[in-house]
Amino acid sequence: MAPIDPNQQTAKDMLKAREKSSLNIPVLRNFIYGGHAEWETYQKMVQILSSDPTFEKSSRAFLTRTEMYNRALAMTLRMQKLKDEHKWSPRETTIASIALDEGMPITLHQAAFEPVTMSQGSPELLKKYGALIANRGIVGCYLQTELGHGSNVSQLETTATFIPETKEFEIHSPTVTSTKWWIGSLGKTSTHGVVQARLILPGGKDAGPHLFFIQLRSLEDHRVLPGIQIGDIGPKAMGGYAAVDHGFARFNHVRIPHEQMLSKFAQVTDEGKYVQPPHAKISYGGMLYIRSTMVSAAGRVMAKAATVSIRYATVRRQGNKDASGLERQVITYPSTYYRLLPILSHAYVYIQLGRNLSKSFDAMASRLASGDTSLLAEIHATTSGLKVLCTTTSIQDVEVARRSMGGHGYSAFAGLGRVYADQVPSATYEGDNFVLDQQVVRGALKSLRALKSAGNKAASNLTPSSAYLRLLLPSSSAPPTITNETWSNSRALILLLEWRAARIVASRATMPEDSDASVDQRVSRAVSEAFVAAQVGEMISGLPFGGYDGRVIEGLFRLYLLTNVEAALVDILSFGLLPSTNQSGDPTSRLRAAINILCRELLPEAIPLTDAFGFSDWELDSALGVYDGRVYEALWERAQSEPLNQTEVPAGYESFIKPLLERGQRLASEASKSKL
Amino acid sequence: MAPIDPNQQTAKDMLKAREKSSLNIPVLRNFIYGGHAEWETYQKMVQILSSDPTFEKSSRAFLTRTEMYNRALAMTLRMQKLKDEHKWSPRETTIASIALDEGMPITLHQAAFEPVTMSQGSPELLKKYGALIANRGIVGCYLQTELGHGSNVSQLETTATFIPETKEFEIHSPTVTSTKWWIGSLGKTSTHGVVQARLILPGGKDAGPHLFFIQLRSLEDHRVLPGIQIGDIGPKAMGGYAAVDHGFARFNHVRIPHEQMLSKFAQVTDEGKYVQPPHAKISYGGMLYIRSTMVSAAGRVMAKAATVSIRYATVRRQGNKDASGLERQVITYPSTYYRLLPILSHAYVYIQLGRNLSKSFDAMASRLASGDTSLLAEIHATTSGLKVLCTTTSIQDVEVARRSMGGHGYSAFAGLGRVYADQVPSATYEGDNFVLDQQVVRGALKSLRALKSAGNKAASNLTPSSAYLRLLLPSSSAPPTITNETWSNSRALILLLEWRAARIVASRATMPEDSDASVDQRVSRAVSEAFVAAQVGEMISGLPFGGYDGRVIEGLFRLYLLTNVEAALVDILSFGLLPSTNQSGDPTSRLRAAINILCRELLPEAIPLTDAFGFSDWELDSALGVYDGRVYEALWERAQSEPLNQTEVPAGYESFIKPLLERGQRLASEASKSKL
Repeated sequence: MAPIDPNQQTAKDMLKAREKSSLNIPVLRNFIYGGHAEWETYQKMVQILSSDPTFEKSSRAFLTRTEMYNRALAMTLRMQKLKDEHKWSPRETTIASIALDEGMPITLHQAAFEPVTMSQGSPELLKKYGALIANRGIVGCYLQTELGHGSNVSQLETTATFIPETKEFEIHSPTVTSTKWWIGSLGKTSTHGVVQARLILPGGKDAGPHLFFIQLRSLEDHRVLPGIQIGDIGPKAMGGYAAVDHGFARFNHVRIPHEQMLSKFAQVTDEGKYVQPPHAKISYGGMLYIRSTMVSAAGRVMAKAATVSIRYATVRRQGNKDASGLERQVITYPSTYYRLLPILSHAYVYIQLGRNLSKSFDAMASRLASGDTSLLAEIHATTSGLKVLCTTTSIQDVEVARRSMGGHGYSAFAGLGRVYADQVPSATYEGDNFVLDQQVVRGALKSLRALKSAGNKAASNLTPSSAYLRLLLPSSSAPPTITNETWSNSRALILLLEWRAARIVASRATMPEDSDASVDQRVSRAVSEAFVAAQVGEMISGLPFGGYDGRVIEGLFRLYLLTNVEAALVDILSFGLLPSTNQSGDPTSRLRAAINILCRELLPEAIPLTDAFGFSDWELDSALGVYDGRVYEALWERAQSEPLNQTEVPAGYESFIKPLLERGQRLASEASKSKL
Repeated sequence: MAPIDPNQQTAKDMLKAREKSSLNIPVLRNFIYGGHAEWETYQKMVQILSSDPTFEKSSRAFLTRTEMYNRALAMTLRMQKLKDEHKWSPRETTIASIALDEGMPITLHQAAFEPVTMSQGSPELLKKYGALIANRGIVGCYLQTELGHGSNVSQLETTATFIPETKEFEIHSPTVTSTKWWIGSLGKTSTHGVVQARLILPGGKDAGPHLFFIQLRSLEDHRVLPGIQIGDIGPKAMGGYAAVDHGFARFNHVRIPHEQMLSKFAQVTDEGKYVQPPHAKISYGGMLYIRSTMVSAAGRVMAKAATVSIRYATVRRQGNKDASGLERQVITYPSTYYRLLPILSHAYVYIQLGRNLSKSFDAMASRLASGDTSLLAEIHATTSGLKVLCTTTSIQDVEVARRSMGGHGYSAFAGLGRVYADQVPSATYEGDNFVLDQQVVRGALKSLRALKSAGNKAASNLTPSSAYLRLLLPSSSAPPTITNETWSNSRALILLLEWRAARIVASRATMPEDSDASVDQRVSRAVSEAFVAAQVGEMISGLPFGGYDGRVIEGLFRLYLLTNVEAALVDILSFGLLPSTNQSGDPTSRLRAAINILCRELLPEAIPLTDAFGFSDWELDSALGVYDGRVYEALWERAQSEPLNQTEVPAGYESFIKPLLERGQRLASEASKSKL
């Protein structure tokens, strides 16, 4: 029986935090979900999934990887049956997967195998496989990364040699390091895959990596086809992605027919002649799609971290007792709210950024389908920088939130450890962040050179990702003088972040190569943060509601900007953008005071602002983040289900504990005898 | 069969990194281990354990918690048998546990139950239980934390009411939140424990938390004694400490005899009169002991992170091919060595810091045993600050190292994910870092007030933990002018870090309460970093060897100081300690250039410097950190043992995959028919 808190203080605290708010939650929720209809659909999906035992989560923490994998397969099949039963639209199906929010083998089919094949396969290939792929009559993966190469795609080693005699390609793994590795869904699930391999033309010319469609397992009995060696690569760090069968594959001269080259853009003729794609980067769409979805996903992760940690900090009381005889709510400590409210602001910003980016991506993709690559460069620049920023920030936010919960944050039942383990690889997958930083810097320097060669008239050519460079034009005015007003003015904060980006890019452009080992990380961050700051400016001016709700959300966005400026202080001080005044001593103290005051203004709305994310207890799966605030009861309940608790005396007692104690008792008795 | 790399390039690269060094590894190793004898003992223990199948590690990644717990019990028993067989001394036994380096239930007996009981139990209690405890004839835990309170010990709720009639104490859990929680070894293993409970005297006076010795389970059959409810609290986040049975306990009016109060200092007479301890903080020894051991442990964690990541970055090649036709070694990229060499410097610093702290602790403990508390305050101040710094830094270092390894760093076989999961709770256990920060700040402000009231003559009273405050005396000279020389001068760097601490403490002293939400974190860090910097200065001047070895280690220590200054730039710039010059533009560029140059000087010695830690492959248990550099073969071998690979077709095929594919094939065929 669970011991019940007779005072139910935690539940009272949670209720009070909601009662005293005058925010309009439905208005905020529609803002977060992009409209009421979207929220309704989302809710419907959560309802269906959370009431179906297949999607039950409470046993997750106790399963082995093999059991987790089986559970994921059961969920995958059930999801398709529900789709059939409820006649879900494609959008509804997508929303159902977002709501489920578990890494599963089928995710890779949806995120990579299907879009890449559909957008780059020839009409013949799609005629044969299109419907099978769309309906999961075959299940596929995307075989890019190798044991020896990840982000550096140009050095992949797997080969696809064209054999003119039979008009086939021969897929081969020539070295250990060419073994395909880390391929989600490859290990045990996929029947087919798209493999990245160097195209070798007759005569031996190497045309670099191209994509090939290949069958991996028999559709009769799921056995691996001859010439292919396949397996699972083993568990991931910290138990992350346990249900996904990331796999390896080696190919031993495996032949595939000519039509299985994804030849919508680049082609090899029957005679073995290579036909160039119309644009060198036209096949980047798939990669950009995945990166663009990562921004929304990061926003969701931040929202979960904020919800769980703010709820627990609201009901947890520690410290000296006040007049009411209760200890102080932990959320009211400066060192707590200073850590948690910025996470809340990140969530609101990144969810909007993700939505905007998806729209831009869709616009680009529909142009790309007709061979128009005009939007590609800007989307590429934007997604590289945002990918780095959203993954780095979200990983950090989850851990800051987890630690804010003290000891209990380290319980698996707190729920954030699992979120962390699944989010942390996002810093290294889909382009290692340190490699992407270099791309961002190269892009910024290229824009700067273009600007300089064109002079003032070039300002109109600046895209959103390089708009901050306008400040380097001769026609630009000097950096603004910082006053106390600056800290309450979003426009001024955005301008400061743009100046910092402009200055650091200008400084990087004249820097001797390799004179500063970490400069590219700082430049990349400054450039991306200037872009995001400008976007936040547009979010503020485009807010679809005003009044009290509008003022609170504007405050949250301003907190984003203020804490961003604080994090950028080294650059801002180094470049003299915030000069030290002998008068006041520390020139940063006004900024820090402004952050503290804004946090205190937002604090009473912290719970409603997290409620607006609309998470159910099933989605959060966190004993400390339960909606009703009854955290200790939830923790107690969860602990009772631990398998070790199913027997009073552990299985290892007879074999290990008893002999250990008997040995010690014997030695102790010998020791006391020898003393006598 | 494992595919073999025909070129064995990775092994060649590793060999070359060792061949070109002229460092004297045995000299460095003795420095790290504190003498040749200690290293020899360590080696002997590693040899014994690593060749014993009980301590085999390769299956760890696939075990459930229950299996991990059983494995830990088996290792515990085997360790005792080895101790008997080889007649290990207490020091050898300790070194064997350090070498094993796995979180186990018995650890809490050794680290908390035994030292607390031995140092605070009455002679009568020790006569009865001392030998049993020493020989593990009983196994114990330390029941402090409750569901509702952790670091805030003063608010613990469990009660121990003295019953004069029977001269007993009655231990009771009055509320849900008073349930003892997070108690290592309590869940399934411990037969006894020391419980923190509020002492309630006759008449109802609450004398606050005191310690009581209590039996939890029967020595006959290991069943839980009447009136007590015990269980395991469930899995930890990220799979950390899986083998430890952190437990909960509730007490329902459980009586224990009078002698079972740990009454060496505070006592209750037979009549129920309370006898004050001679010093309010005399019982702090146990807590300080655990914190002091955390510094060495953090140093070891840093050393592991540095070894694994530097080895992999040395043999991993990525990027454009050079004249030899090989891609560039990843360690040669600035963004890589800039991340990894500082971790190496942290390891060298913290290992020495840990040894110094243990010596100081031992000196204090022997005085404390005779009631002399004169060294307590300084050890308390030092350990609070160092606990925060060493845990925060080591956690960050492991994750920086893990991410530097790119995608493969996320494999469980890379080994650092497991180290992270076990190290990350150190930020919140044994005093939450954010709470300890406040203690550090309070200590610094107290020292400042004492200094101010005593004036110049007080300088001689400054302890090492507050030595930096001398700079605030009227007799102190002004902060030094930064020149290019500063960056190559360790003394100047230390002085800069001390000035930064002095300035921020002075600024904090005059700051309105709650005007800056994050100031205490910055002050605490500055104070602790000034202390460590001064210690590093002593390490440099006291280096027990010179010549090339000395120059390299001095360089490594200087890298510590330089990167510390870089991380402190916001404070240093804010307080005008590094004024911006209009001439050079960015005043920080010289510092960054100095870091880069020093990194490049140290780079060729990176592998030997990690070899000097002396880790065996068994200790590191990392496919990417293997001594011989054959990382891809190691990764391949480990993957083959994944349980999912034991069948070609997964167990879930018939139930889930086949029906999924059949449904999809049916729908695809219907779709194609309806088109016809």
